[in-house]
Amino acid sequence: MTYCCGILVREGLVMVADTRTNAGLDNISTFRKLHIFEQPGERVLMLATSGNLSVTQGVVNFIVEGMEHPESGVVESIMNTPNMLHAAHLVGRAVRRTRAEIGDVEEQAVAEGVSFDVALLLGGQIAGGPLRLFMIYTAGNSIECTQDTNYLQVGEHKYGKPILDRAVTYDTDIYDALKIGLISMDSTIRSNLSVGLPIDIALLRRDALRLEVSARIDSNDSYFRELRDSWSKALRAAHMAIPTPPYRGRGA
Amino acid sequence: MTYCCGILVREGLVMVADTRTNAGLDNISTFRKLHIFEQPGERVLMLATSGNLSVTQGVVNFIVEGMEHPESGVVESIMNTPNMLHAAHLVGRAVRRTRAEIGDVEEQAVAEGVSFDVALLLGGQIAGGPLRLFMIYTAGNSIECTQDTNYLQVGEHKYGKPILDRAVTYDTDIYDALKIGLISMDSTIRSNLSVGLPIDIALLRRDALRLEVSARIDSNDSYFRELRDSWSKALRAAHMAIPTPPYRGRGA
Repeated sequence: MTYCCGILVREGLVMVADTRTNAGLDNISTFRKLHIFEQPGERVLMLATSGNLSVTQGVVNFIVEGMEHPESGVVESIMNTPNMLHAAHLVGRAVRRTRAEIGDVEEQAVAEGVSFDVALLLGGQIAGGPLRLFMIYTAGNSIECTQDTNYLQVGEHKYGKPILDRAVTYDTDIYDALKIGLISMDSTIRSNLSVGLPIDIALLRRDALRLEVSARIDSNDSYFRELRDSWSKALRAAHMAIPTPPYRGRGA
Repeated sequence: MTYCCGILVREGLVMVADTRTNAGLDNISTFRKLHIFEQPGERVLMLATSGNLSVTQGVVNFIVEGMEHPESGVVESIMNTPNMLHAAHLVGRAVRRTRAEIGDVEEQAVAEGVSFDVALLLGGQIAGGPLRLFMIYTAGNSIECTQDTNYLQVGEHKYGKPILDRAVTYDTDIYDALKIGLISMDSTIRSNLSVGLPIDIALLRRDALRLEVSARIDSNDSYFRELRDSWSKALRAAHMAIPTPPYRGRGA
């Protein structure tokens, strides 16, 4: 099903995405879901996708090729859009355009259990503007991440949400935020077969306008294996440290 | 939405259930979802309910009043059913009977967003037979908990599942199992508004045929408040103990 998260902190932005894609349990593949659009020194935009792969790939194609802006008529692409808000709207228009092309067949496909829904995270910074993170929905509308709940998730979000709620704030160190994002991903991978390795990660410091980290983590990665083991051990130790419940007899 | 779990260990069975019930965000109430049927020395059965309250209450009424067994014609109730497997089937028949009485109005109600679906956990022991735990579905069919994955959940199960997967096995001490069930409930309460205090708990030792613990935990309960704080602190400490990610530059 996918799991991606974006964590926005004072120091910058971290994105974590899995790569497992499936057309049923017997048809599993690996497809990149974290797409980077970078002009070092001028812009870094990162798009993390979930939902129907043909739609999300269609969206990527439209934003790379460019689409006419409905008001100005200018052909706007992810590499020339003037600011992050415009970029979020561009992605929204690309979602609507891709889904519109599916057209009449959608109703029948939906009846057969195929969903054309998508949810995307778009984060990044364009020179002259601030670092921003958005979530774009199936209808093309979007919301922006704020300091209050300083992360956004798409896909199978429930397993990975508790650690984000408890451990990450706007003031979290950016590499700690990456670590917490990986823990969040680990919890999800353990609990949902449709989310799997390898994982793509990216780290962008505020105002750097170039990626500091862009990497793929596979099953051989020793740090990630250590993180998964340490986290499991820590959870076991944590509950063993809590005293035994004192309840006895019939309180109610 | 509800969250209940049953954990089956060598020493016995633990059940944990919330009590929050809602007909929309503006209509929240407290209703018991953990129903105990006990004849000390002869039987203890525990039913934890989720889903449409009018259906689950209907089920409780039918199993208490008794229903004619479709083959023998004997009126079978939760207090005279001969063994746990019969009890699970009795609950299944009660689900089907209650839902059948909704009849024609169901389609319209469903179109308006009302669901009549339910999922129930039935656990316990009847003298002469073993301790068993079942989950009964909306269609009245059921599955049984085994030693491999020695717990069952109903309702909002995702937030509370990771700790059960990592921390509880068939050989877990029964009071540790209760503690882990409470941690599982805490994670769920923090993440889903439709799950809330007070919580009902029950603990039954294998072959005891009488409840050892039956209690309601409310917001004043000092143990549960401590457990929640300790767990949060432990999670924060756990991730701080994991080293910083080493990724730098462009790996991919």
